[in-house]
Amino acid sequence: MKDIRVGLLGLGTIGLGAARILLEQQELMSRRLGCRLVLVAAADRSLDRDFGLDLSSVRLSSDAQDVVTADDVDIVIELIGGYEPARTFVATAIEHGKHVVTANKALIAKHGDELFAQAESNGVVLAFEAAVGGGIPCLKALREGLAANQIESIYGILNGTCNYILTRMENEGAAFADVLRDAQALGYAEADPTFDVEGVDTAHKLSILAAMAFGSKIHFDEVFTEGISRITPDDIHSAHELGYRIKLLGVAKPHGEQVEMRVHPTLIPLSSQLAQVSDSYNAVQASGDFVEHTMYFGRGAGERPTASAVIADVMDIARVLPGGVAYLPPAMGFIAAERRDLATLPIIDAECEYYLRLMVQDDSGVLATITSILADHHISLEAVMQKERHATHSVPIILLTHTTTEGNFQAAIARIIALDCVQEDVLILRKEQTH
Amino acid sequence: MKDIRVGLLGLGTIGLGAARILLEQQELMSRRLGCRLVLVAAADRSLDRDFGLDLSSVRLSSDAQDVVTADDVDIVIELIGGYEPARTFVATAIEHGKHVVTANKALIAKHGDELFAQAESNGVVLAFEAAVGGGIPCLKALREGLAANQIESIYGILNGTCNYILTRMENEGAAFADVLRDAQALGYAEADPTFDVEGVDTAHKLSILAAMAFGSKIHFDEVFTEGISRITPDDIHSAHELGYRIKLLGVAKPHGEQVEMRVHPTLIPLSSQLAQVSDSYNAVQASGDFVEHTMYFGRGAGERPTASAVIADVMDIARVLPGGVAYLPPAMGFIAAERRDLATLPIIDAECEYYLRLMVQDDSGVLATITSILADHHISLEAVMQKERHATHSVPIILLTHTTTEGNFQAAIARIIALDCVQEDVLILRKEQTH
Repeated sequence: MKDIRVGLLGLGTIGLGAARILLEQQELMSRRLGCRLVLVAAADRSLDRDFGLDLSSVRLSSDAQDVVTADDVDIVIELIGGYEPARTFVATAIEHGKHVVTANKALIAKHGDELFAQAESNGVVLAFEAAVGGGIPCLKALREGLAANQIESIYGILNGTCNYILTRMENEGAAFADVLRDAQALGYAEADPTFDVEGVDTAHKLSILAAMAFGSKIHFDEVFTEGISRITPDDIHSAHELGYRIKLLGVAKPHGEQVEMRVHPTLIPLSSQLAQVSDSYNAVQASGDFVEHTMYFGRGAGERPTASAVIADVMDIARVLPGGVAYLPPAMGFIAAERRDLATLPIIDAECEYYLRLMVQDDSGVLATITSILADHHISLEAVMQKERHATHSVPIILLTHTTTEGNFQAAIARIIALDCVQEDVLILRKEQTH
Repeated sequence: MKDIRVGLLGLGTIGLGAARILLEQQELMSRRLGCRLVLVAAADRSLDRDFGLDLSSVRLSSDAQDVVTADDVDIVIELIGGYEPARTFVATAIEHGKHVVTANKALIAKHGDELFAQAESNGVVLAFEAAVGGGIPCLKALREGLAANQIESIYGILNGTCNYILTRMENEGAAFADVLRDAQALGYAEADPTFDVEGVDTAHKLSILAAMAFGSKIHFDEVFTEGISRITPDDIHSAHELGYRIKLLGVAKPHGEQVEMRVHPTLIPLSSQLAQVSDSYNAVQASGDFVEHTMYFGRGAGERPTASAVIADVMDIARVLPGGVAYLPPAMGFIAAERRDLATLPIIDAECEYYLRLMVQDDSGVLATITSILADHHISLEAVMQKERHATHSVPIILLTHTTTEGNFQAAIARIIALDCVQEDVLILRKEQTH
């Protein structure tokens, strides 16, 4: 039975998960592949610790360079994370004719297209199932399972930390800052949570999904991104009363030669499948012109689930190695020459429904003034909720609009905020009809 | 650009869906594949009708033999359904060196293993994504996306007709027979619904999933199967009060050298992702030792969703054709020599939790008698519900047990039914902790 030799960069959480599968599931994987995956080398900056795993059969090095240039490595797994030095190591591995598997969404979102080109010209492949949705094989589903479809929309709950925080805020009626602090203490959120709670991580993943779905280049920098830090338990409660749950959602839709990409807290119907995705679970909903709505659900992070996706990529590569990676589906679902550089839809042209929370003076005529401004802009309302009076001389008003463009909505909002009877603390959320 | 030539058997609902994709999505598919899929020939017994589709570029025949033996066909799509003559046509196509794609779960469940062997010895592939879960790429997920995992359990809502009926029974409080009649009038259920409502269709699909998950041969005939026709709206209501929803569930679990396979109406937690799958939607929940819980959701039937899965298989084959289908993952997820003939766990050895609905005489001491019999058999209770008195001198009692073996439970039930105070109309449902 032929050996396929694997080198591993990074022995952190996910790296050790990948090593564990390679060491512990060898028999199972050989039964599936007809060849043997052998972990021959691994690199990590700090080797002087207990890995909780017998790595005695693995050549260890503190220098990643040793792995990416090794003659006896066929496939390199990059689990260092971040832009650099991961990018340099991946590029070097490709130059040396190694196939690369990574879970690094930041790297793919930012430098994926240049690395795919480099891989193609070196006759190797760069695979990244674990970069989106952790253990969920959602990229494979989109790239292969739905390949006969024009994709009509992608909705994703792609960040476990945000979903965990929103779930606890809803269940406990607790404030964002309190839940975040607790999540940090429990290790569910990073010490610097910006990347997660401000939507950057979700934007990384969404940009990859969108490019794969619509056959475009990856435009991470152009994703419209808002985080969850301004959501209050009252908003969650109001949304619930209106029949919705608030999720940090990645949204991507095609518009001819443009692609719409947005990440923001979003009201989705309580009855929809996505609204049931709680705690740190992730899910991707992909709809196509033939398949209609599909959804993929599972663990979006964690040592073992993420390692599951990493090794699935390794197995896909191992299977075709005797013939060459031309027999794999193209990394981004379209052959390189057919990937287009579609423009990103300017956010002001995006069409949306809105949830608007205003604090207004508790006077007669205020609601009439606000709704007449919205009417001026041809924005019609699905619901209006005036909540009980606060201690101060102001009351919260919740408005749920029908569809309008972001540009038109922002123009109306500017006029509303300028009103003397409206306070500056305005919260705008968006609404999507998920399934 | 190279042409891959496709022949189609059956121009019914799904067949026309597949033809539509091949004719209408050609450009999209070429951008993904780098080759062109061309529908060159199609066969159907009745050609003298309006297909609602321009088939003028396709060579039509009323004899399937013309397609499966044609020199200019690379891939045959079989969408006739049923055991025969589908089996003979598929076998003939394989003999003639054609790759075959089918949506025929009955055929795969019953004759799959012999056809896989024939395909392997002819150097061709038999693909069947659409046979389970319709448009949902759940077999690909299980076979490839979760390939690094020992699969620990499979739960499937695999029959849209049953799920539609149960959803309407719950929403409307309507009786099974009434909803079924209406579903038949609307075309959601067949004139003879036995296959669907008695669980046979679900058993076909479950036997395929189980064999793929655990690396075993397909043992459709050994699946324990019960249908939904005895469920009442009261049962659905009682289950709901206890925190559960009733679904027709396919359940498969590994037990060393044995495989457990059961299809029956099942109480699953209201909060679980699977409990949200309503109407005619399908879903498969697959859990693995690394990936934990994953779920795949979408349309389990219908022209366009099923055709989406059929053509995804065609595209997978087209991609590797220049090199040969050895570069595809093995049809059942394990190389042929490594598929084992695991025995099916006898149903009496299966461990389950039970929902038991009894009609008993409204006398003191009856509940004590029943629960003491259960205690004799070491069966402990999670819940007991005595419902309001009926018009007659009898009352329904609902018992929810903790885990016991089917054999032990049936022994206890036999003693309970023998009691004078218990009527013969006993309903036994099972319970699973889905996620």
